[in-house]
Amino acid sequence: MPLPAPGPMSLVPFVSVEAMMKIVLEQGIERMLIDLARYIEDDFRRWEQFDKTPRIAAHSSEGVIELMPTSDGRSYGFKYVNGHPRNFQTGRQTVTAFGVLSDVETGYPVLLTEMTILTALRTAATSALAAKHLAPKGAKVMAMIGNGAQSEFQCLAFKAICGIDTVRLYDIDPKATGKAARNLAGKGLAVVPCTSAEQAIEGAQIITTCTADKQYATILTDNMVGSGVHINAIGGDCPGKTELHRDILTRSDIFVEYSAQTRIEGEIQQLDADHPVTEIWQVLAGKNPGRRDDKQITLFDSVGFATEDFSALRYLKDLLGSGAGHQMLDLLADPDDPRDLFGMIERYGKAVAAA
Amino acid sequence: MPLPAPGPMSLVPFVSVEAMMKIVLEQGIERMLIDLARYIEDDFRRWEQFDKTPRIAAHSSEGVIELMPTSDGRSYGFKYVNGHPRNFQTGRQTVTAFGVLSDVETGYPVLLTEMTILTALRTAATSALAAKHLAPKGAKVMAMIGNGAQSEFQCLAFKAICGIDTVRLYDIDPKATGKAARNLAGKGLAVVPCTSAEQAIEGAQIITTCTADKQYATILTDNMVGSGVHINAIGGDCPGKTELHRDILTRSDIFVEYSAQTRIEGEIQQLDADHPVTEIWQVLAGKNPGRRDDKQITLFDSVGFATEDFSALRYLKDLLGSGAGHQMLDLLADPDDPRDLFGMIERYGKAVAAA
Repeated sequence: MPLPAPGPMSLVPFVSVEAMMKIVLEQGIERMLIDLARYIEDDFRRWEQFDKTPRIAAHSSEGVIELMPTSDGRSYGFKYVNGHPRNFQTGRQTVTAFGVLSDVETGYPVLLTEMTILTALRTAATSALAAKHLAPKGAKVMAMIGNGAQSEFQCLAFKAICGIDTVRLYDIDPKATGKAARNLAGKGLAVVPCTSAEQAIEGAQIITTCTADKQYATILTDNMVGSGVHINAIGGDCPGKTELHRDILTRSDIFVEYSAQTRIEGEIQQLDADHPVTEIWQVLAGKNPGRRDDKQITLFDSVGFATEDFSALRYLKDLLGSGAGHQMLDLLADPDDPRDLFGMIERYGKAVAAA
Repeated sequence: MPLPAPGPMSLVPFVSVEAMMKIVLEQGIERMLIDLARYIEDDFRRWEQFDKTPRIAAHSSEGVIELMPTSDGRSYGFKYVNGHPRNFQTGRQTVTAFGVLSDVETGYPVLLTEMTILTALRTAATSALAAKHLAPKGAKVMAMIGNGAQSEFQCLAFKAICGIDTVRLYDIDPKATGKAARNLAGKGLAVVPCTSAEQAIEGAQIITTCTADKQYATILTDNMVGSGVHINAIGGDCPGKTELHRDILTRSDIFVEYSAQTRIEGEIQQLDADHPVTEIWQVLAGKNPGRRDDKQITLFDSVGFATEDFSALRYLKDLLGSGAGHQMLDLLADPDDPRDLFGMIERYGKAVAAA
């Protein structure tokens, strides 16, 4: 007598790291970034439909573990993500993540997925989407400061979505710069490794900072930032962690994802709580012009928001619907009679005994 | 050329529903309830070490999806759980859940598990643990009102942990009562199916209510509750969902898990915000006597709290350490160089092409 198979309602599609790598290779990374940006933009444009809350963070001396939930009333998504700057010393990722998309009507998960790779993609897609509206017209050169796990994704997103043709790389660790330069070779970008942040920003219309220290750092000082530049600051993303000198902030027009969260975690934690900022959805929805003139310094103070993960989960679910690889996970109990959870275990025991 | 296997740090132990059923059968359900109660008690006794927050709930007209995180500074746990009273109409569980335990030092998950079955077990273990300190001495008879998926677990926990020898079952649906009675046959309990709540509580020293309507209901009215009884109310667990008439509450000494959460979700949402209640950890830690005399009506207004899930996750992780069945899930990216997430995908692509 065969063991009873898990009931159909017990199974949840699961995308492993390996399955995600296959999806990235099949789709092509630039195509995937462009498609992701479209989903992210669509969701930002219907911002008012989402339940929004700052993420729920558990801080420790080593790092942070966060849950990032949101819902549009039909689907519910959340991401689990950590941030541990010293993890690389033990061969671990600074940021790892996984996420779940659920059906609000039943509360049942419909997708479980790795999100370490997917977060890198959605973060890059969000940065480039914002820059499309904030960077100076015709920007071709980006300085990429911080050449860790996120950097290549950023560079390719700005190429695919904003038309950047040159990236100038700098990291305090030259090995990281070398790694990024090798990975970006042959990808259609001119790649210029630099030995200082000052050198990296020479001639750059866009400056992306993505460093991982969990402390107040000053990656950019005020005199380094000329007029007309767009700054994409994505490394400062928790209380006590910033990358830019305060004087840069006061000279910039600041754009954020969700101000209630960014005031806790972003660069603007250095400013008064009522310092004016613009939520990026207002730009994407046409309620705010974004960049107004050539001299304006624009700053996207990005910490990552739950709707971006929701968009990424929604994108991935649609891909699975078109046949992308995944496995089915026996995650939810599915007894014959939904009220007979206890009996399900007993019947399984009898089947095991008889098998 | 073989494809690269997922790196060791990418793998997270996963306990599926089937694996959990095997564990329950191997351990024996009463033994498992007793062991779980010990873990839950240990954690309640060190209550002050935990980061505590009311769970994060996303409500809809159909139900609720909740995230329940907590941490003791070394481990971090969270549970995803839904509550959808009408789910049984489509063959789904009212409550399904899964959970994760992580290492605070790295932020890396160390366990992913189904928690539909595990939640049923930990809820029953918590109820019986509280009753051991709150029910009248020598209590032998329990009324079990609401005979859904949770009911058999409750009955066996009260047998194993409190020495109950008789359960009196009632549900508005006689089929549910019949199901519970059949499941409990031969388990060492006298089982009395009843046709009304009034009949069920005859001679009972403990009354457990576990019904699922998402609304204010009155499962027990004031005249039904005599002096000396212990009430274990576990079905009211979200805003607008209660089971007991308000007059019962004002006659009872009320014990709760975490008052900040219970005032939002429990029976006591019917009372003033400053109505005195005792957190159950104070009883378990010896700071409050629990039941003081034979005439006192005690009420455990239980909505389920994150530390109970944390205890269950910790218990399960220890079981896996002793060899309990599970599989390894490729959930976390583990590149050779932790900063080379991008390169990992490229190298995988080359290996696929060469294979």
